[in-house]
Amino acid sequence: MSVVAKPNIKPLGTRALVHRIEENETQVGGIYIPDSAKEKPQQAEVIAVGPGELKDGKATPLPVKEGDRVLLSKYAGTDIKFDGEDYQLVREDDILAIIES
Amino acid sequence: MSVVAKPNIKPLGTRALVHRIEENETQVGGIYIPDSAKEKPQQAEVIAVGPGELKDGKATPLPVKEGDRVLLSKYAGTDIKFDGEDYQLVREDDILAIIES
Amino acid sequence: MSVVAKPNIKPLGTRALVHRIEENETQVGGIYIPDSAKEKPQQAEVIAVGPGELKDGKATPLPVKEGDRVLLSKYAGTDIKFDGEDYQLVREDDILAIIES
Amino acid sequence: MSVVAKPNIKPLGTRALVHRIEENETQVGGIYIPDSAKEKPQQAEVIAVGPGELKDGKATPLPVKEGDRVLLSKYAGTDIKFDGEDYQLVREDDILAIIES
Amino acid sequence: MSVVAKPNIKPLGTRALVHRIEENETQVGGIYIPDSAKEKPQQAEVIAVGPGELKDGKATPLPVKEGDRVLLSKYAGTDIKFDGEDYQLVREDDILAIIES
Amino acid sequence: MSVVAKPNIKPLGTRALVHRIEENETQVGGIYIPDSAKEKPQQAEVIAVGPGELKDGKATPLPVKEGDRVLLSKYAGTDIKFDGEDYQLVREDDILAIIES
Amino acid sequence: MSVVAKPNIKPLGTRALVHRIEENETQVGGIYIPDSAKEKPQQAEVIAVGPGELKDGKATPLPVKEGDRVLLSKYAGTDIKFDGEDYQLVREDDILAIIES
Repeated sequence: MSVVAKPNIKPLGTRALVHRIEENETQVGGIYIPDSAKEKPQQAEVIAVGPGELKDGKATPLPVKEGDRVLLSKYAGTDIKFDGEDYQLVREDDILAIIES
Repeated sequence: MSVVAKPNIKPLGTRALVHRIEENETQVGGIYIPDSAKEKPQQAEVIAVGPGELKDGKATPLPVKEGDRVLLSKYAGTDIKFDGEDYQLVREDDILAIIES
Repeated sequence: MSVVAKPNIKPLGTRALVHRIEENETQVGGIYIPDSAKEKPQQAEVIAVGPGELKDGKATPLPVKEGDRVLLSKYAGTDIKFDGEDYQLVREDDILAIIES
Repeated sequence: MSVVAKPNIKPLGTRALVHRIEENETQVGGIYIPDSAKEKPQQAEVIAVGPGELKDGKATPLPVKEGDRVLLSKYAGTDIKFDGEDYQLVREDDILAIIES
Repeated sequence: MSVVAKPNIKPLGTRALVHRIEENETQVGGIYIPDSAKEKPQQAEVIAVGPGELKDGKATPLPVKEGDRVLLSKYAGTDIKFDGEDYQLVREDDILAIIES
Repeated sequence: MSVVAKPNIKPLGTRALVHRIEENETQVGGIYIPDSAKEKPQQAEVIAVGPGELKDGKATPLPVKEGDRVLLSKYAGTDIKFDGEDYQLVREDDILAIIES
Repeated sequence: MSVVAKPNIKPLGTRALVHRIEENETQVGGIYIPDSAKEKPQQAEVIAVGPGELKDGKATPLPVKEGDRVLLSKYAGTDIKFDGEDYQLVREDDILAIIES
């Protein structure tokens, strides 16, 4: 599900802006997160990434990039609405894995 | 919404002085924060920034500057009133993203 | 119990994707985890591993590899279903030991 | 409001001795802290400062000096009475900003 | 009490596999842990040890080795059953002392 | 109030042995700690000091010495009685300031 | 009160084996710990000490040695009985001071 107009939001630090992919949408790679799971990850598409952690003047980039499909931990980040679409600002540590196409 | 007379407040350390932009004011870039969001970020304009984190005598400047529009985490900082206007002193970590015009 | 089609999930950081081996299945090396144990480890097979912890640009690989049989601490990770099979994304610290064949 | 006789108290470490300026007194720079603010900073004058944080034998001086007007976080420090006047011993981290005259 | 067939379990990191010595068994060195003690250490025999803590690529071995008799803090580790025998996977920090024969 | 026979107690690490000066005794420098203060510092005289924090084999001495009058945070340390006198073993961080004579 | 047969217990890390000296026994240096004290240190004799904290392969020895009389913080360590005598395994940080004879 590709994004409408890309929101003009530049995440800061180790955060990423992501767009959730609801369960009933076509699952890429057949990944389905059981409702019962105590911590249900959420599939999402990466929209934008922050510069990463800054240490001694050097930034360590995030391990994900724009367009990647990822799995989020359940209680990840902060909800944002843009042009009627839902987005989330999440921390790097809340991104569990990349779903390879 | 540009600020009246700029408050003579110099934030310390990693703090920034910001001026909240209420929801009903014109949203820049169409960003709207759903009330339901468990942690509703708040849009604001940066008024002044502290020197940043001091380590081994060197300061790492904040990633935002005066005039930037930013998204704040919901429970950010400390409220201050100046000439009838509301301001907040927030920490760098409470500034989630920059809204690019 | 070898895995059906390997899920196209690439764990991030110090995480590993594992496939639990239920108690009633044949136990390798006779390991049986008593129900009464306050923290009942779970036997599992390693499906994929993340790059490991990144520090100063260098990654420290996980001490387990694809195909290893391991013991997990009881409340490990996040459940995922793929092609009807249960998987878990666990942290390196939740992997207690390797069961040598 | 200038201090009567300066208390002979030498703060230690990253602490500062400050003298609160009550709200009804003339506000410098028109700063007024709304009662409703969940964390109401308090205006104060700096009376004396400690040496600052000692690390590897080197002290990092506090970013404020005697005579500065500052904003304190609400629950800052320890109350002290000297010659009938109220003072507080506060930590550097409880001093939010300097009010420039 | 020497162990039956040694379990094929290789502890990871700073963990050790130990085999508890019940109180009524002959106490080595007359050590008896009073029931009343708020944190009753448990005597055990070390079966296998992990590589120890890995830092900058170097491992610091555990201060105990296979065959040592040790005292454990009361709420140590995770219970495991192997060939009808009880074992525990404990952290280095839960091993209080060595009982010298 | 000078101490009777000095207790033969050598504090360890960053601790100091102090002798509280009760409020009704003559206050040095007119310092009086209001009962209402949420955290009422206590005046005391320093009897003995530990070597200070040891790091990489080097000790950083405490910023106070025997005979100094100091202000303690309210819930400081451990009470000790010696020859009928009350003393306290306090941590360096519980000593807020020195009262200069 | 000198120890009967010395227990064959070798403390690990920063721990020490100590033997409590009950209040009614003759107090060395007249130290008496008031019952009312919120944290009543306990006098004890040091029986054996661990190697101390290991950092980068180097051990920092404990500041106490066998035979020293020390003051313990109230909730120190783990009780052990040996040949009918009570002992405790305590951490270095729970040893507040040395009582010099």
